[in-house]
Amino acid sequence: MLQYNLTEGYPPLRQYLAEELNREGIAAHENNIIITTGSQQSLDLLGKIFLNPDDKVVVENPTYVGALQSFSAYQAQYLTIPCDDEGMRVDQLETVLKNYKPKLIYVVSNFSNPTGVTMSRYRREVLQQLAYQHQVPIVEDDPYGETRYSGDHIPTIKSIDGGSGVILQRSFSKTIAPGFRLGFTVAPTEVINKLVAAKQSVDLQSNTFGQMVLYEYLRSGKLPAHVEKLREVYRHRRDVMLDSMQRHFPADAHWTVPDGGLFIWATLPEGMSSLMLLPDAVAQKVAFIPGNAFFANGGGDNTMRLNFSCASDENIVEGIKRLGGVIKRHTSQFPTALPAFLI
Amino acid sequence: MLQYNLTEGYPPLRQYLAEELNREGIAAHENNIIITTGSQQSLDLLGKIFLNPDDKVVVENPTYVGALQSFSAYQAQYLTIPCDDEGMRVDQLETVLKNYKPKLIYVVSNFSNPTGVTMSRYRREVLQQLAYQHQVPIVEDDPYGETRYSGDHIPTIKSIDGGSGVILQRSFSKTIAPGFRLGFTVAPTEVINKLVAAKQSVDLQSNTFGQMVLYEYLRSGKLPAHVEKLREVYRHRRDVMLDSMQRHFPADAHWTVPDGGLFIWATLPEGMSSLMLLPDAVAQKVAFIPGNAFFANGGGDNTMRLNFSCASDENIVEGIKRLGGVIKRHTSQFPTALPAFLI
Repeated sequence: MLQYNLTEGYPPLRQYLAEELNREGIAAHENNIIITTGSQQSLDLLGKIFLNPDDKVVVENPTYVGALQSFSAYQAQYLTIPCDDEGMRVDQLETVLKNYKPKLIYVVSNFSNPTGVTMSRYRREVLQQLAYQHQVPIVEDDPYGETRYSGDHIPTIKSIDGGSGVILQRSFSKTIAPGFRLGFTVAPTEVINKLVAAKQSVDLQSNTFGQMVLYEYLRSGKLPAHVEKLREVYRHRRDVMLDSMQRHFPADAHWTVPDGGLFIWATLPEGMSSLMLLPDAVAQKVAFIPGNAFFANGGGDNTMRLNFSCASDENIVEGIKRLGGVIKRHTSQFPTALPAFLI
Repeated sequence: MLQYNLTEGYPPLRQYLAEELNREGIAAHENNIIITTGSQQSLDLLGKIFLNPDDKVVVENPTYVGALQSFSAYQAQYLTIPCDDEGMRVDQLETVLKNYKPKLIYVVSNFSNPTGVTMSRYRREVLQQLAYQHQVPIVEDDPYGETRYSGDHIPTIKSIDGGSGVILQRSFSKTIAPGFRLGFTVAPTEVINKLVAAKQSVDLQSNTFGQMVLYEYLRSGKLPAHVEKLREVYRHRRDVMLDSMQRHFPADAHWTVPDGGLFIWATLPEGMSSLMLLPDAVAQKVAFIPGNAFFANGGGDNTMRLNFSCASDENIVEGIKRLGGVIKRHTSQFPTALPAFLI
């Protein structure tokens, strides 16, 4: 457990994961899997092997800020596609693929960070077909998929149509422990080989100790019951937060209702800035993430990401009450109808 | 132990390391330290924050292949300085610094990988002065420093003259356990802040569990006795290997005598290729690393890196005997005096 191991990861763990993937309908062999130092590392490695300066990456708008940080280090440019309650607006994708020849399409398919939105099955199919037709690899980031607590399971993009052009990445951070820093990526062997070469120059391998503990835990069969418990806790906390928002947020704010994951995404009236609220909220010991960081090319000033996963019921209720108060105070200072000459 | 922690690393561990550094004569505060996923990660992060395509890096020739892999991912070019038994030939450095304005100087100061050679105190001083004068940061890679088993301790370049232009990186892989993937980097706060930003996009943080175990182990006070044991084991194995080489290697081969670390560096007669020997050696179950991988701009075909750290006495003796036999067989097929028209 203390020694060096393979760069691609502890073989029994990779074999176990391959079998799990097969059960899920994803054709994978251990050679299609690399263990990464959190799924965050996969984003960095993918940037390293796929992106040259000024290469284009298609992202949802908004999207996971950590993906933007990783790809930006390789000087990527972003083609943003808007989202609605069914995820990426794939009807706007074809023109972008045709005109800009992007190197990657990055998407969080389940309970997205930051919006909590899940891409519908129909859109997954359209996305997979369009990407395949235009020969652009899809990076399907799925750290939250196991945490579904309402609605029906939707197959991954990877599992649709064989998904040979799809690179799937997952994490154990949301189901077992983020402190081990372990995730994995599933891809064709040719891509895995390049990721392994890149990983060698980055950290040689992910920590052996954690990989072995993880493997023992997984094969103990205890994970499903643990995840079921998580789902109950998160479902309840989501409901407490949604209920509190209904009561304390202003009537002209709206927000997503996630079927899993950790996040609710709130949109305040157009023209407001959530960043401007933050100092007041923090002064009342309530923090949130201002939404604009999740927009690759700017915008979203009136949005915020709320996380309900690790606060008690009492704290959620009190926190949302305080935050609602801060928003209402700022709204009242903010003219509801802007003079026409300003717009 | 299972949760997320700070990107820069577990604070008590960083405080502990800062105090250790102070005892060693290196001025450091916890804000001068970042915990990395092995010291390998530091090389990648330094590449990310310092290097643009075609930037120049000064390296010893030969040097650690993992550093070349990391910097090459950022499209670095190398300025190689030859080495002898006192390390980098700093007398050849000034012209290079003047003419090529490199972004970094990379050096393994103690018991180098691959050569086992230690840079003399005089050369460290010259290197530090020249680098400071030409405003080029030195990356001092010191994963083996604790493993000295003969000769006198030499202060790090970092500790000479305050070393404010020196970035020092160390590892726990050689003294405690490589399987935890933990190392650390010491640098001015401004550099640490950039490394932290870069690390956030790379793996968020190094594993919390390992950091806490490491901290508990360090403060238990058990490390010095453990390292003392390692030194005895390694000193003995080095001596067994050197003795075997004396007996079984051809008379026209020569090699380094390391005062610490894990490696002996052998040079075969000019014109031989260690790579060509490898299949024969492996067929006899003896492996080594062909030396040419350690030369940034090619060369060194007649060199090889031997590792004595993890084989038993019997295996070292038998392995060197077989390897010596393979070399001698190849030497005998190899004309000792090449026809002049070939040279």
